[in-house]
Amino acid sequence: MRIDILTVVPELLESPFNHSIMKRAKDKGLAEVHVHDIRDWSTDKHRRVDDYAFSATAGMVMTIEPIERAITQLKSERDYDEVIFMTPDGKPFKQQDANSLSLKGNLIILCGHYKGVDQRVRDHFITMEISIGDFVLTGGELAASLVCDSIIRLIPGVLSDETSALTDSFQDGLLSPPVYTRPADYKGWKVPEVLLSGNEKKVEEWKLEQAYIRTKQIRPDLLDDDE
Amino acid sequence: MRIDILTVVPELLESPFNHSIMKRAKDKGLAEVHVHDIRDWSTDKHRRVDDYAFSATAGMVMTIEPIERAITQLKSERDYDEVIFMTPDGKPFKQQDANSLSLKGNLIILCGHYKGVDQRVRDHFITMEISIGDFVLTGGELAASLVCDSIIRLIPGVLSDETSALTDSFQDGLLSPPVYTRPADYKGWKVPEVLLSGNEKKVEEWKLEQAYIRTKQIRPDLLDDDE
Repeated sequence: MRIDILTVVPELLESPFNHSIMKRAKDKGLAEVHVHDIRDWSTDKHRRVDDYAFSATAGMVMTIEPIERAITQLKSERDYDEVIFMTPDGKPFKQQDANSLSLKGNLIILCGHYKGVDQRVRDHFITMEISIGDFVLTGGELAASLVCDSIIRLIPGVLSDETSALTDSFQDGLLSPPVYTRPADYKGWKVPEVLLSGNEKKVEEWKLEQAYIRTKQIRPDLLDDDE
Repeated sequence: MRIDILTVVPELLESPFNHSIMKRAKDKGLAEVHVHDIRDWSTDKHRRVDDYAFSATAGMVMTIEPIERAITQLKSERDYDEVIFMTPDGKPFKQQDANSLSLKGNLIILCGHYKGVDQRVRDHFITMEISIGDFVLTGGELAASLVCDSIIRLIPGVLSDETSALTDSFQDGLLSPPVYTRPADYKGWKVPEVLLSGNEKKVEEWKLEQAYIRTKQIRPDLLDDDE
């Protein structure tokens, strides 16, 4: 898998892609992420990539030209499965989206910044708009790094223990049950006895029950959801 | 405002806090973020901070002791308004949460990693559990950086144009209307005429209408929501 990220603040993304899982995926040759500065495609002598919005009271807007030039160049080099735009008014990103994107070959991710991008970019170049949640960020860069992490960790061979991702929250429509590790008694706070019992059947029953209780308490909407 | 982040992968967070808005907030003395390596509080000679989960088939769990020692030390140095845990099975983070957290003084944010943290940490130390969305990440680090960004940009004086945050998506329960900037005609793709009309009343009507159309199309749930 190859992901090309287009941003006006590439320096924000230095550390997220050079450590932990994303570095491991790169080192193993399973995923490569290229972060591009949109200014490199600006024809303005000051490398400007934004301008005042038409009829707006506040804020700058990313202009169409350098973005068109960047996307056109990348597309001339290889085929892309999706051209994604990170924006708070996109479709909320879910685990199923991570699952399906992890099966793709090449992706472009454009990070929104300032008050957004000229709508004509969205109308003519973007194939998928992703929102990370109902809140506003300074830019789409950190959100893009999250999306990359959620996708890349699903590629077979990236996680050291492949079964690990399958027992995550959301993969079965429930939140995960509580987890405990040693010591069994910490200052009088004890691990539930069933987990120490060695009775596999009872442990599985307890986990399912706890997952259900937690989901019902924190996220009843997941239980109502028939999607 | 002061935010203390506890993590097992501090290097992931180097760049997000040293550029863009978060750097500006720091430089202006409006917000400080301290990233701590939980291993610094481990008493294990190998600085271990995780162990096998009781009765689990896969994955490691963050142990209670170094986290308790870290939180206890921080709390002895100053009062904290919240001790937040980043976890996919927490309460979904919304703009209202960013708004209210931006008014706080001191926050601790614990980043989940591996298969999670020993449940006793959550039971005894955590006052608020935040999920960034219905998907799983390698760790809570990047999610924590998003939360910090969404909070810090709301602190008065951080954004160069204070009115900017108020016209963001979600602040009025609607997605933002489309934005456009120059040129008015780009390769035949034109900016809507109303935006060039100079008729302020018509522009405002158009924006509201577009915001409503976009919300209805992409996020009808926001219109049903009476919260």
